[in-house]
Parts: sequence; structure tokens; C-alpha cells
Amino acid sequence: MSYNSFGRVFRFTTWGESHGPAIGAVVDGCPPGIALSEADIQPFLDKRRPGTSRFTTQRQEPDAVRILSGVFEGRSTGTPISLMIENVDQRSKDYSEVAKAYRPGHADYAYDAKYGFRDHRGGGRSSARETAMRVAAGAVARLVIPEVTITAWVEAIGGDAIDPARFDASEIDRNPFFCPDPEAAKRWERLVDDARKAGSSLGAVIACEATGVPAGWGAPLYAKLDSELASGIMSINAVKGVEIGDGFAAAALRGEDNADAMRPGEGAPTFLANHAGGIAGGISTGQPIRVRAAFKPTSSILTPVETIDRKGNAAEIATRGRHDPCVGIRGVPVVEAMVALVLADQKLLHRAQCG
Amino acid sequence: MSYNSFGRVFRFTTWGESHGPAIGAVVDGCPPGIALSEADIQPFLDKRRPGTSRFTTQRQEPDAVRILSGVFEGRSTGTPISLMIENVDQRSKDYSEVAKAYRPGHADYAYDAKYGFRDHRGGGRSSARETAMRVAAGAVARLVIPEVTITAWVEAIGGDAIDPARFDASEIDRNPFFCPDPEAAKRWERLVDDARKAGSSLGAVIACEATGVPAGWGAPLYAKLDSELASGIMSINAVKGVEIGDGFAAAALRGEDNADAMRPGEGAPTFLANHAGGIAGGISTGQPIRVRAAFKPTSSILTPVETIDRKGNAAEIATRGRHDPCVGIRGVPVVEAMVALVLADQKLLHRAQCG
Amino acid sequence: MSYNSFGRVFRFTTWGESHGPAIGAVVDGCPPGIALSEADIQPFLDKRRPGTSRFTTQRQEPDAVRILSGVFEGRSTGTPISLMIENVDQRSKDYSEVAKAYRPGHADYAYDAKYGFRDHRGGGRSSARETAMRVAAGAVARLVIPEVTITAWVEAIGGDAIDPARFDASEIDRNPFFCPDPEAAKRWERLVDDARKAGSSLGAVIACEATGVPAGWGAPLYAKLDSELASGIMSINAVKGVEIGDGFAAAALRGEDNADAMRPGEGAPTFLANHAGGIAGGISTGQPIRVRAAFKPTSSILTPVETIDRKGNAAEIATRGRHDPCVGIRGVPVVEAMVALVLADQKLLHRAQCG
Amino acid sequence: MSYNSFGRVFRFTTWGESHGPAIGAVVDGCPPGIALSEADIQPFLDKRRPGTSRFTTQRQEPDAVRILSGVFEGRSTGTPISLMIENVDQRSKDYSEVAKAYRPGHADYAYDAKYGFRDHRGGGRSSARETAMRVAAGAVARLVIPEVTITAWVEAIGGDAIDPARFDASEIDRNPFFCPDPEAAKRWERLVDDARKAGSSLGAVIACEATGVPAGWGAPLYAKLDSELASGIMSINAVKGVEIGDGFAAAALRGEDNADAMRPGEGAPTFLANHAGGIAGGISTGQPIRVRAAFKPTSSILTPVETIDRKGNAAEIATRGRHDPCVGIRGVPVVEAMVALVLADQKLLHRAQCG
Repeated sequence: MSYNSFGRVFRFTTWGESHGPAIGAVVDGCPPGIALSEADIQPFLDKRRPGTSRFTTQRQEPDAVRILSGVFEGRSTGTPISLMIENVDQRSKDYSEVAKAYRPGHADYAYDAKYGFRDHRGGGRSSARETAMRVAAGAVARLVIPEVTITAWVEAIGGDAIDPARFDASEIDRNPFFCPDPEAAKRWERLVDDARKAGSSLGAVIACEATGVPAGWGAPLYAKLDSELASGIMSINAVKGVEIGDGFAAAALRGEDNADAMRPGEGAPTFLANHAGGIAGGISTGQPIRVRAAFKPTSSILTPVETIDRKGNAAEIATRGRHDPCVGIRGVPVVEAMVALVLADQKLLHRAQCG
Repeated sequence: MSYNSFGRVFRFTTWGESHGPAIGAVVDGCPPGIALSEADIQPFLDKRRPGTSRFTTQRQEPDAVRILSGVFEGRSTGTPISLMIENVDQRSKDYSEVAKAYRPGHADYAYDAKYGFRDHRGGGRSSARETAMRVAAGAVARLVIPEVTITAWVEAIGGDAIDPARFDASEIDRNPFFCPDPEAAKRWERLVDDARKAGSSLGAVIACEATGVPAGWGAPLYAKLDSELASGIMSINAVKGVEIGDGFAAAALRGEDNADAMRPGEGAPTFLANHAGGIAGGISTGQPIRVRAAFKPTSSILTPVETIDRKGNAAEIATRGRHDPCVGIRGVPVVEAMVALVLADQKLLHRAQCG
Repeated sequence: MSYNSFGRVFRFTTWGESHGPAIGAVVDGCPPGIALSEADIQPFLDKRRPGTSRFTTQRQEPDAVRILSGVFEGRSTGTPISLMIENVDQRSKDYSEVAKAYRPGHADYAYDAKYGFRDHRGGGRSSARETAMRVAAGAVARLVIPEVTITAWVEAIGGDAIDPARFDASEIDRNPFFCPDPEAAKRWERLVDDARKAGSSLGAVIACEATGVPAGWGAPLYAKLDSELASGIMSINAVKGVEIGDGFAAAALRGEDNADAMRPGEGAPTFLANHAGGIAGGISTGQPIRVRAAFKPTSSILTPVETIDRKGNAAEIATRGRHDPCVGIRGVPVVEAMVALVLADQKLLHRAQCG
Repeated sequence: MSYNSFGRVFRFTTWGESHGPAIGAVVDGCPPGIALSEADIQPFLDKRRPGTSRFTTQRQEPDAVRILSGVFEGRSTGTPISLMIENVDQRSKDYSEVAKAYRPGHADYAYDAKYGFRDHRGGGRSSARETAMRVAAGAVARLVIPEVTITAWVEAIGGDAIDPARFDASEIDRNPFFCPDPEAAKRWERLVDDARKAGSSLGAVIACEATGVPAGWGAPLYAKLDSELASGIMSINAVKGVEIGDGFAAAALRGEDNADAMRPGEGAPTFLANHAGGIAGGISTGQPIRVRAAFKPTSSILTPVETIDRKGNAAEIATRGRHDPCVGIRGVPVVEAMVALVLADQKLLHRAQCG
């Protein structure tokens, strides 16, 4: 178990830096015989792609994925699937300041403390660019779990939340914010614009729901479904909080209010609520899986912040370069991908143990 | 990586059910030469032990731990350390109802869906009793990281939070709630008593701080320190949310407000804030590590709840047996243990890669 | 993946020292619903048990196994199965010499070099006593693969081999050597007796065959069936060589002689030979799996050998204590167990990926 | 732990097929700050490269490796190192027969049995072409263990062995067989030529020695150095046997003859023999590590062999295409690479546990 792999039997490994020649992923353990081509992956990458609106970074990356192995005559062979995206629009010179001084909140100082030096160009390995490969791997994972539908959206930006009463899933792909509430989407245009113009950035909350997961995936403890999801989602750049079901709100409830009461149903029980987010005792119950993730605001901002340089002297840093004013927005397809990757792995693990 | 193990090079495996003859853990990868005896572990178990006040379950378990291997002449040998606690006070007959019908919110239904049947006595493997072995393993982990001090406390019960202005660490061990705010502790006496008498239960929020972690532990992505902590803490029974640093609150901040600005300091920089909870880019910064966990209310309650039985018929269940009215309280030493276990593993991993 | 665990999804962890209070194993990932009690395990332990003839160590150990978890009402629950054997007949005083000086060929010097000190009593963790737990775990593994029959035997002792023409499987359990050739068994009585009386020891070659493995278990490369078997068998104390099928003899063959030609058969092809030992490209072919293991002679011998003591001074050592004159003999049930453990794991892995 | 990765903390994953666009490896867990460029890797690939003499396959592959990540300004950054080689000289049409019928001894039948279909072009994933990436990853591993020198050679071809008395390490790179005995090299010219012309193939035995390994690397049992080496080497295509030290010959020795007696030495003991191959109790002793591997003869031969086709009908197959008459020869740099990869991993693991 190494540092850049995730999963137990359906497993992927990513590599690459923001300003290196390419980024890539190796997906291992994929079942054989699954119809797979670049066209199954590209739409998810396009959803995450930078430069598509003024609310995301202006870096222009086609993010065209290539499958280099593991597929023969249009089907997965069961051997490792190598995915690669060449980096196109690097402007490394933008980062000369980052080489010298540390951006507060960013990985700069911690990387130097750990490794002694770092690839500072565009954040190197710590760049959110890595998440493109999670999205690509996640597209493969989705094919392993065709019974499951995964949808994520932005629930709040900079503390301004959607109105659950206005939730409309069909709106999510109609605005640049993956926002299911059209009124919130309008407010966010101005909110994000203002932050961008002010050289600032905003945090966001992403919610994700997976329907179609049968009862029985997961495990009692260290691979419990909650824990695997938390691990996967917390491993995304900028995420600092994860909730399953009601999460922290459940901590304020009484037992009888938090209980997801059951009634007899067709084939499966009918649940009267879903406080648990579709997971009880670490194992799926057949209800929709519900997860939320907190994305902190982008650390690379134009607003000058007090810091130190590599020699330990006082400095001030204002990060030029092209950055997302709200990195959480493009986190939506990434959260979906991680949920898909966890569920594909759990499906295969369940099959291993329970036949 | 299997279902009942945790960690990468400092690794432990737990086994045992609530009403079996014993529970245990195997701690593997412990460095040799560490002074270790039962006396190093027992105090942490005593802190978690049931039956010590009317605010926890009345099951009487001495929880006396035995070391069965891996220690010779008072020191760890580098080989696996086997820890065992015999179960003493089982009253399996209390659980006849649980055998027949599913407690909403509990693992009962999901276990049956996954495994086809289950050990229903006291919740079997899904019982919080398993956490005793995490506490025991965590006590060993603490000896691997003597430079680190870990302290957890209850921050809120049933939605009633402490006043941060009254935080006093020395109060934590002076009340049955691990509460650092004496006024909140008084309120909670009544709150928990009322819930207990009403046959209900309450959720809780636990906070934990680890000081003394040097800059550089962790990894950029899938083993990032945030992700390892989230995985470990979310694997604890009843936990449904995890935050690192400001967590969800960070999602409402602007970039300049979330930045932990730095100034030149002695040996290490002086940080002006710690929104990131001591972790940037997945790697420790040298600041205190800060984590929070949301515990849902205990699912086993006396208040009757609508449910189904094993045959799918409508039923109502009121769980007799002895249960914690607020399982989060005894979660305090468990959260501390998981943080210790993650940090011990990360220390050794850092040493492996960075010498 | 830690130091004392083996397997990927069907996984076990052993713990314990030769002269500690007990030894044990945790079997994790076992499918639920399998009928399992101590009576399924004990016969295999009895086969390996010391003190049953004058050709093995005279240590008297009943090796009575207890199941401490993971089984409810006679069936596996899918949660970890904890197995424990209490040590009964330790005579630690026999080992005072071993504490001071290093037995050549034994782990003594290497342990001190690695860990700085060691539990010298009976070899501590390096004792072949650990293999009892492999046998116990292997008995569980056999229940996971009821379609497979595994049989091992001794093929040679001290260079004196059986005559393949006289191979009779029904003889294996009729002599104290697990020898399928009754004439060889007679010769070995004298051979082993002479070595024992001379204070010497003998090496042995063990062969093992598993029939009933369907085509398709295994993987192309790093988890190829050959590699998993080699890893498992080479991890047994005293083993220094492993062969699959013809092994080293295949290196002397020409391609057309080594080819296992195929003819049409019922359901599966008819193979005209089995040079490959039932594995091609890392994957089972449906033929019998054939493995061989070389056990070196026991390193603990009465014959004095030149060595150094812990301080680096010249010394001579003659190991008293009770030792097997030919540790390979009792390796027979251990090799069977490791083959069972590998195959159970591979069966579940195959099911995970290929449904 | 998935199917195409190897190692625990210094870990690599390979991908790619014989006739796909490229093959590659991701090396994860490499320490930071190591000087590394393509020039450090290419010489080892050149040693393994096909088409360099008439004794290897005539496929012309420049095997030019590119580093795509993990290196910045000439030094490893501590993040994953992606290595890629583009395939140049594929002639997939040569394999139309292989698509239809199974080569006995090859992976063809087993792959179809497992996956339902296969990429037949050049053997797909089962091609020895994959070993190029082990050699590339191994070149990185060597930089992690500069204290170790690893040398492999061919010890026998088709049963014709070198004369140990004529062993001369400086000869190894002076002939196309990596043969340390010039007289044997001369004999092998004729032997291999004859086999090639006859449309046959030959097996080989490879020996490898690693000097400079300090005492203390390894682990007592499931990650014992013998076991890790056996696992790694047995995972190489065509290998069917592995020996550590005297291997099977040790099984014919008496205890006192197999003992590697010790005398006081400078800093470390002086060993009077090395039957154990530098490993006792799973841990290195400071002596040279000695390993041997048996390579079976290439399964793809021109000599017609009886077989069945994909539909189960009787057939005969003579494999055209370009194949090594003795695949063991090019196994020499591959064995060296696997030994380097195991030792690098073990060095870091030892550092993790023992500081």
C-alpha cells in the first residue's frame, strides 16, 4: 500500500505534476469484457476541464485522454488500464514567486519540510490538476457499477447555501456552478465574480448522492463504507471535512429522531428516513448513499498575505498565475469520481467475500 | 489490506465480538526496544471502561488487558504484539428481541443483507466493545510517538456546545463527560440523565488535538494525513462526520481569511492561525493537529421505533439491554487512540521514505 | 501489508513466540456461513504436533486450538476468526547458551543485528512453533475451497529420495515420515535415527499436489499463482527453495519437451503432460497444481559448531533443548496449509474480478 | 494490494502489452533528492534490449525510456516516478495463428479461461516485454541502495552448466550470454544456434549475487527476505523455480555441514561459509545475498505441437513471430532488477521499523 494508490481490489495509481509533460493513472483490477473507449471517459473530463467559464481557472487544457493499455478490440482485458493526458498550457514562469516564498494554506512549506525541496511549478504534485486522473479513473469505475447512478452538486459557496425546497437535479448541468437551485446560481455569479475581481477566493460545500447501491456493500469496521468514502474524499485537494448522511447534524439529534424507521416493502424494506446516508454498521442498506464534502477556499490568491521565504525571512506573497476563484466548483466531478471508485472497489470486495 | 486491519507499516488488526469469550488486537510493525507492559495500556482502557458512571452503559467489564506476545523482558521485540481482554459480563438473553427484528440505525439489517445471518448478541462485531482494542493498540502507538501529546474532549452533546472561552484542559478528566467547560458539564448531567430516563439517546461532537507533531509527516494524496485521520476516525462505530481544522466552517471563508499566515520564528515559522488544523497539502506543518468527529446518538434505545422483523413483517422494537445514553462520551479515548495510531504509522512511513 | 500477515482478501495474521503464554492467528475475510468448529482444525494440528514419534522433537504440546471469535452457532459470520493455542511445555532454561552465543544457520545473529536484542527462549518468534498457526489457519482455508484436495509428502530426506515408481498415496499417513514409498520410509528410520543419535540433523524435500483447482485462478504477474505459492512456501521456516511443476528440471529441457500438449477433452482439454505444475502465465490451467519445497537441516544441533558470542568473541555452541532431527518432516502439513491459504485467497480474488 | 504492483513502501506498478502503443511503470515511494535522469536507466534497458545478437529475438526495439513525472531539476521529488517506453516494432499479423489456437506452455489457454478473451498480439500482457519496465524500475531501485552491488549471470543453458572453477565476473559482459565462463560461452553459441535453427528453445538457470547488504534487512516471516525474493523472482515470466543460497542442495546436507560457522571479525563476524545465501531467519546477515532462478524454455516455438483451438477442436500449432530461443538469457538484467527492487523496499522498511 503506497502513497499514490487507492482501492483494495479495484485499485488505481495516479502520477504527474501540474507542469510536467503529462499526468496519468493506472487502473488495476478492472473486470474483463467491459466495453471501454476514450469516449466513455472524455465527457467526465470535459465536465471538470478548466477554462470553460470565467468562474474557473483560465488555463486552457483540452484534457484529451488516451488509453495506452488494458483494452483490446473495445473491451477491457482484465489487465491494467493506463490512462494519460498530456499537459499543454503550462506557464511555469508565473510561479517564480512561489519558488521563493510559501503560500500560506498551500502545500509549499510542508513539502519543503518533508522532502527538502519541491517542484514549485503550478504546485507540482499538490496541484488540483491531479484530480483529472481521478475523474478519468472514476469514469472506468462507473462502468463497473452500471446499477449505480452518482450525482454531485454544489450546495453552498462562501457560506451562501441553496434552498433545499428549490432543489432541481435537472438544473445542475445548466449553470457553471453545478448548482441545483437556479436562484442560488444567480447569486453565486456575482459572489464568485466579486471574489475573483478582489483577488480573493471562496470555499464550497459539495453534496453527492449515489442511488442503486444494493444492501450489503461495505464492511463492519476499518473498510466500512463510511470510512472508505471519507478516506477517498478527504484525499481530494482542499477538502477539510466529510459527512455521511446527516453528519454533524446527527450529533445534535436524539436516538428516536435519528432512527431510519423501516416498514415492509417490495423485496426490500421501505425506509421512512435516511439520516444514516444509506450506510448502517459500515454496510449499505439499499437507500441512497449521501456524502458531503467541505472544500476550503483556494490558497493561491492575488491578495497579499504575510509569509516567510525559503530562507525563513519575512515576506509577503500574492500568487499570480491562473487559479480557480472557488476550487470547490470543479470538485463536483471529482467527488463523483471518488464515490464511483470506492463503490466499484466495494462491489468487487463484496463479491469476493460473499460470492 | 483486509477488513479488520488498519495502518500501513505500524499496523493493527482487531478481532472479537461483544458477547464472545474475548476480544483482541495484534499490533504489528512496532519498533523494537520500547519499554512496554500492561501498565502502559490499562489506564487508557480504564478511561474508556463502561460502568464507571450513570452516564455510560451499566455493563461491568474490568477490561483487564493481557500482552500475549511481542514483549520480552519488558521491551517490545519488533515482532507482533498480541493483546487480549476477556469478556466477563455478557447477558446475551437481553438480546432475544434483536435477534428477531432490526434496530433502525443499527447494523442489524445491513449485516443480515450482507452475510445472510449475524451474531446478534450485544451487536456482535458491530458493538462499540471493539473500540476497547483500538484503545489498547493506541496505547502502544503512543509509545512510538513520545514527542506527541494527544488530548480529546467532548465539545457538544445533543447540540449543546461548550463555550470556547471557558475551555480549560485541566477540567477534562474532572467530570464524567470529558468536558473542558465546567458549566457545560453541569448542564450535560441533566441533559444526559433526562435522555437516559426517557429511554432515548444523544449524539455528541468530539474534538482532538495533537501537539508536538513535527513538520513533514504525511503524504501528498491518498495517504495524506487528513485522509488517514478521516479514514481512521470514520471507522469508529457511530461516527458520521470528520473535520480537519476548520472543516466545514472553512467552506464559508474567503481565501485571505483561511490563510494561516507565517512569520519568521525560532527553528520553525510562527503561524498566525491554524485554520488548516496543522496539515497543508496532506503533510503536517508543525502546528497542532486538530480533528473533530460527529457521533450519532446510540441506535439501541428503549423508545419503541417502527421496524421490520427478519421475515420482513412490520414490527416495533424497544432495545432492552445496557446501552450508553450517549456513545460519544466514551468515544473520547477512542478518538485519541485512532489519532495516535495514525500518527505512529505516519512517523514510521516518513522515516522509511525520508530517512 | 505488514510483516506478519499473508494474503490479499482471504488474509491471516499470526502472533506468538515459542515460549510465550500462547500463539495465535487471526483469519480475516473468510466468507460467511461456513460450518466451522475446533473439530475442523484439530486433526491438521495433530498431524503437525510435536512429540508423536522419536523422529520429531520431544516437546509435548497438545496444541489444542480455541476459536475465540468469528463463529456463531457453528458457522463463520464473515468477521475475523481468532484462533489461539496455549503453550504448555516450555523449558526455557534449556536455552541459556543460545542467549549468549549465536547458532550458525539460525536466526540468532540476524535478529540481534536487526532488533538490537531478541527473545532467545526456544528461538522466540523464529521458532517453527509459529507454523502451528499456519496449519490452523490453513484448516479454515480448506473449508473455503471444498472443491480442492491438497496432499503433501516427503520426497527425500538427507538426499535419499523416494522411488517415483513406488509412489502410493495411501502410504503417506502410515509412517512417521509422511512417506509415500514404504521402502524409503524404512531406510529413513535408520537415517534419521543415526542423525539424531549423532547430534546432527537432516534436510528434506517436500512435494505437494492440489487437485480440483479450476482453470482461471491467479493473475498474470505480481500475484501470479506461481509467485503467490513461492512467497507463501518460502516464508516457512527453514525453506530455501521452491519449485513449481518441473522447476529447475525444466531449465534443462527443450521447448517441445516442456510443452504440455493439449487434446480435446470433456468440458476441459486433456493435457498430455504437466511440466508447468498446473500453472501457465500465472493462472491455473485446471491440471493439478504441483509444488516442491527444500527444507534445510535443523540449525539447532548438538554437534558443536564454531561461532561467536553476543560480544563478538570466539565461542563454540552445541544446542541442547529438544529439536527435530529433520524439521522438514513436520513441514508436510505446513506446506499443505500454505497451499490451501494461497488457493483460498486466489479463489476469492478471482471471484472479485471475474464474477 | 492489486495484481500489477510489487513492493510495500518502495513500490512499482507496471502496465502495457506487447503490441500496444507503449509500456510503462509507476515507481512510488522513492526517497526524495536522488539524482535521476533517463541516462541512469537506459544502460540497464540496453542490456536487456532485444535484437542485439542472433541469440535473442530479432524484434527491433530501441526501448528508449522517458521519465514523465517525479523528477525536478534532475532529482527525485518523492512523488511517483512515471516511466514509459513506446513500442516501435510490432508485427501483429505474425500472431493470427495464436489468436485461434493455444500454444502449449504459454498463457493463451489460461487467459481465455480466466478472462473470457485475450489480447493475443505478441502474448499481450503475458509477453516478456513487460520485463523491460521491471528493468527500468530496478534502475531507480539501485539508486536507493548505492551500498549494494548486484550481479547476475547465466549459470546453465539447456542443462549445460558453467564450471565454477572457471568463474570470472569480468567475462559476464563480454559474450552474448552473460556467461562468466568463456568456455561455456563458446559451447552455448553452438547449443543456442542449433536450437534456434531447429525451431526449438532452451531453458536456463540464472544466478544472482548482491554484495554490500548490511545485516538486518528483512523480517522474520511473511516478509522474510527469502520470501520477498522468491515472490519477486517467481513473478518473472518463465521462471518456475527459485533457490536462496544452497536451495535444494541444502536439503541433502547434514546440519553441521549446512551451518555457516562464524569467527570474530572486524565490525562484523567472519563467516566460514554461505550456505544460507546471506539470509538467516528471514533477515540479512551481512554476507552476499545469493539467489538462483530456473527459466523454462520459451513456449513459442516453430516446432509443431499438438493443441486445441479456441473452440476446443484438435489442432497443431507452430508459432511464427520473433522469439528468443532462450528467454533466460535476457532474464539476467530482469533478475538483477527484481533483486534491486526487493532490497530497496526492504531497506526502507527496515528504516521504518528500526530507525
